[in-house]
Amino acid sequence: MYLPAHFEETDQETIRDLISAFPLATLVAQTLDGLVANHIPLMMNRDGTLVGHIAAANPMHQLITPDQDVLAIFQGADAYVSPNWYPTKLETHQQVPTWNYEVVHVHGRILFQHDAKAKIAAVGQLTKEFETRTNGADGWRLADAPQDYLKARLADIVAFKMQINRIVAKSKLNQNKAPQDIENVAKMLSLHGAERMASRMKLRNSDD
Amino acid sequence: MYLPAHFEETDQETIRDLISAFPLATLVAQTLDGLVANHIPLMMNRDGTLVGHIAAANPMHQLITPDQDVLAIFQGADAYVSPNWYPTKLETHQQVPTWNYEVVHVHGRILFQHDAKAKIAAVGQLTKEFETRTNGADGWRLADAPQDYLKARLADIVAFKMQINRIVAKSKLNQNKAPQDIENVAKMLSLHGAERMASRMKLRNSDD
Repeated sequence: MYLPAHFEETDQETIRDLISAFPLATLVAQTLDGLVANHIPLMMNRDGTLVGHIAAANPMHQLITPDQDVLAIFQGADAYVSPNWYPTKLETHQQVPTWNYEVVHVHGRILFQHDAKAKIAAVGQLTKEFETRTNGADGWRLADAPQDYLKARLADIVAFKMQINRIVAKSKLNQNKAPQDIENVAKMLSLHGAERMASRMKLRNSDD
Repeated sequence: MYLPAHFEETDQETIRDLISAFPLATLVAQTLDGLVANHIPLMMNRDGTLVGHIAAANPMHQLITPDQDVLAIFQGADAYVSPNWYPTKLETHQQVPTWNYEVVHVHGRILFQHDAKAKIAAVGQLTKEFETRTNGADGWRLADAPQDYLKARLADIVAFKMQINRIVAKSKLNQNKAPQDIENVAKMLSLHGAERMASRMKLRNSDD
């Protein structure tokens, strides 16, 4: 990824927060079938791996080899930024449009897991996380489904862990602009309903 | 992409609408530097190509060759779906969590353009589109910037057209569920603030 120094994201908490807030990863690999991309919710484990599962019918687990580099992309908020929103534009008119966005690129290797224990662990972990977020203490549990039904569903999937070799993250939040420009862009984005991008920009601007 | 028949999106208008509503493409290519992904706003032209531009400092235009297959991914709304939201769950308890999402994969080849005419055309087209959406008749225009400044900015970029070979799109909107399940999931997502996904599900459910 093209990454000017002022847009490079190095804060580990920010990177983890983005993965947690936008868990649907785009998992990309170059395979014998060409470039393959699949969209899969992933969770970062305490051991620093990414955990997920795919349909057993998805040929990805046959196409990707254990020694192959793959890329998991997590995409945060994004928004068009109009030059009209920079107050300093009025002085020099030296502004052009841009696009703000936040992304995390995780480079690593995948180990597919076909045993029931690993599958239950992956499904259990993802379910607990997203059910707790969605329904709190009333969250759905694996045990709510009949045993036979659950067994059949587990037969339909393959679990995996992604070992992380390298993370490259970009927070493109107008950091190369004057503080008053950032402030007003955030205000305008907020007015246009882009609340997440607006709050990320304000937070980053106040950090500097 | 793994694509069960019931999730395949074949409606051309739906595909164009997603590209238009989520223009920040993830452009992926296998290069001599490994897998490379860049995030670039793209627009579909009347001639059926995708138009964009990148920083001249982005090595992408040197790494990608004209005869190479690349992939532009457009990602729409996505949302976690709890089994608790399916009314039919109460009868059989035979439901598990899933993730709904909409994506468009555009496979094709890229022609980079280094001449001023092509650069102005690309920048002008994208600017007009996004300024009109954002500011209506008061939109910023290229002519609002000083000539010398604009010339320097154009020197900093490379334009490109992506010739489309193939589009594969997936609308994963619970189409494999009962109508009353889809209706209630859409209602719950709406309550959780996932308005776009909710309205896409309701629209698709009413089509069938």
